[in-house]
Amino acid sequence: MATVKLISDAEAAQNPVVQAVFDDIRAIRKTDFINNFWRALANDPAGLKRTWDHLKSVMATEGAIDPLTREMIYIAVSTANSCSYCVQSHTAAARARGMTEAMHGELLAIIALAAQTNHLVTALQVPLDPVFDVAG
Amino acid sequence: MATVKLISDAEAAQNPVVQAVFDDIRAIRKTDFINNFWRALANDPAGLKRTWDHLKSVMATEGAIDPLTREMIYIAVSTANSCSYCVQSHTAAARARGMTEAMHGELLAIIALAAQTNHLVTALQVPLDPVFDVAG
Amino acid sequence: MATVKLISDAEAAQNPVVQAVFDDIRAIRKTDFINNFWRALANDPAGLKRTWDHLKSVMATEGAIDPLTREMIYIAVSTANSCSYCVQSHTAAARARGMTEAMHGELLAIIALAAQTNHLVTALQVPLDPVFDVAG
Amino acid sequence: MATVKLISDAEAAQNPVVQAVFDDIRAIRKTDFINNFWRALANDPAGLKRTWDHLKSVMATEGAIDPLTREMIYIAVSTANSCSYCVQSHTAAARARGMTEAMHGELLAIIALAAQTNHLVTALQVPLDPVFDVAG
Amino acid sequence: MATVKLISDAEAAQNPVVQAVFDDIRAIRKTDFINNFWRALANDPAGLKRTWDHLKSVMATEGAIDPLTREMIYIAVSTANSCSYCVQSHTAAARARGMTEAMHGELLAIIALAAQTNHLVTALQVPLDPVFDVAG
Amino acid sequence: MATVKLISDAEAAQNPVVQAVFDDIRAIRKTDFINNFWRALANDPAGLKRTWDHLKSVMATEGAIDPLTREMIYIAVSTANSCSYCVQSHTAAARARGMTEAMHGELLAIIALAAQTNHLVTALQVPLDPVFDVAG
Repeated sequence: MATVKLISDAEAAQNPVVQAVFDDIRAIRKTDFINNFWRALANDPAGLKRTWDHLKSVMATEGAIDPLTREMIYIAVSTANSCSYCVQSHTAAARARGMTEAMHGELLAIIALAAQTNHLVTALQVPLDPVFDVAG
Repeated sequence: MATVKLISDAEAAQNPVVQAVFDDIRAIRKTDFINNFWRALANDPAGLKRTWDHLKSVMATEGAIDPLTREMIYIAVSTANSCSYCVQSHTAAARARGMTEAMHGELLAIIALAAQTNHLVTALQVPLDPVFDVAG
Repeated sequence: MATVKLISDAEAAQNPVVQAVFDDIRAIRKTDFINNFWRALANDPAGLKRTWDHLKSVMATEGAIDPLTREMIYIAVSTANSCSYCVQSHTAAARARGMTEAMHGELLAIIALAAQTNHLVTALQVPLDPVFDVAG
Repeated sequence: MATVKLISDAEAAQNPVVQAVFDDIRAIRKTDFINNFWRALANDPAGLKRTWDHLKSVMATEGAIDPLTREMIYIAVSTANSCSYCVQSHTAAARARGMTEAMHGELLAIIALAAQTNHLVTALQVPLDPVFDVAG
Repeated sequence: MATVKLISDAEAAQNPVVQAVFDDIRAIRKTDFINNFWRALANDPAGLKRTWDHLKSVMATEGAIDPLTREMIYIAVSTANSCSYCVQSHTAAARARGMTEAMHGELLAIIALAAQTNHLVTALQVPLDPVFDVAG
Repeated sequence: MATVKLISDAEAAQNPVVQAVFDDIRAIRKTDFINNFWRALANDPAGLKRTWDHLKSVMATEGAIDPLTREMIYIAVSTANSCSYCVQSHTAAARARGMTEAMHGELLAIIALAAQTNHLVTALQVPLDPVFDVAG
């Protein structure tokens, strides 16, 4: 029920930009599998390349936050933004990077607690304490 | 500009439930400072106690996710839910638990990337790949 | 810091559509006070009239849900949509219609609980129980 | 899996308000097809009429913004509000009004970019530059 | 398509915390039926118990807001947070507590009106009227 | 009240990546003014450069959607995501590209209508009409 068709491997082969991104996804992820997000995005080859390059630079580069934590942060944002596909694909990715059931349970507890206090703060319109002001 | 008044220490002293929570916040956090969220919540003593007990059980108990990561997940949810006060108070809390500027920069990059792909997935209505289905 | 200027009474008097809506607001609410929402909307007289007529037909007509409950539902939606002005103006309106501090505390507790379970359900991607399906 | 039943043509014929709106939808859109949104809304005849009249006055009246641009703005809001049905029906409507694949690709790129910077701004709590203040 | 498996009665029987919560749900609700939300949450027994206890204390305790109004507020928040399962399960719960079709129609009208003015206020950036400031 | 400090011109001059982006912003926009969003982002030079390059490629390149329409779509997303700063800065940008008051009024009417029907669709859980399914 996508709003665009999903680009098959045969169709990808007819556009060098799409083909190059699909090749890179397969090389980086060490699997032949390409999930539907990329097949949908491939209708706009420039957008596909920009999004993949962006994702690689943020998620696949070594940094100060470890890969599993990155995936858990991704799940947190995707949950608050109500993106079902994103929640499911990144929960699978987090498990592949070592998320245990205990960690999943804690992650959900933190997300749920934050959502609860987010709504309380908004309903109460809590004024900022001066101590939290970086410029203060 | 709160929708309720902020309960002062003198007012808290007149309700044993509020006083007990304020005492516990000070003991757990090892500071005399009580931020406005709790002073606003204190208009409903039962709600104050329930929220504080909940927060303690999720954020202040040892578990599989470390305290700094918990705060970063909190920031991620609060950002997606557009809660300014929550973003500011939990960014301060994350810094107090050791978040460096490099980690903050990476955290923001992950949040921004997730928001971007959340919206792309929703606009494309990407169908779930069967491989992500836990029950499959 | 509005994105439009706020229309004064003198400016309203120069447009019969705006003047008529301002007169009607004053008559219905039995007060000379016109809050900033209507002064901002008045930059688009047709939009002002359409929104005021809509609001009157939904909020000021007798029906199966009482006026105070309507305001509490309004606060709930406005909180989840992170609209500060809306939360503040409708909390004032709910108080004017008799919302007690106890009711306000319960309202916030329900909003917070719903936000929490909304996020849990999304993170868990709970499948619909067939029994909830009206068409079933 | 709607929370109400979908009103059939036979049921619509039993309520003059519903019948009149269904007739008007068919006349304006020059098709016999009535999509499920209106069939669900028709459980509340007054709400059906109010919503249809509102939609006609905003979407079907000539104005300063052309019909295709209106549909693209509708898709943008519906995406940010995570409304799957709305995204799908208005993407179909935009295509019917001439949206090309290139335009669709650009629309998605703008939506995704805006979502990204929306989240960055919220996480950074960027203070308003005085120059953006209309009243300044 | 949940991100976790749904805990069956046989599996629940193997964990005393889960079993106790399932027993309590059945006793309080006077039905043998346990909906999928609780079966999904049961993967994290502590989270299951905390969420059930929280829900009971907010929704099943007598207070200043009647049970049907509580369910309608729940639907309002769940709608604004785009939680399909929550909308469906709490619409069923509201009907079980006496929500008529007329009330459902009015509830939807209020939710839709609030969403509309929430967006108008945000797009207009309406400044708060001093009269709404509780501290003023 | 930002969560980071705003990088001044003097501080920007000490990092070649930041300096190059600030120079480019000034050259492209033909003004010496750099708004706070970029000064906040500049705490993470790599993120600043990635975001600016991304924005340029989406917003400043000729394409099938004209520059003013792009800004109106940006406002629509930013409104639905409750980003005050984004609404204000992009409303200013849209005006600079020729948005009239009439267009602004229509834009707000479309955003408000979409928000309203988004919430109605979610509360009704309207099932997709097969005709909207691209793959159908």
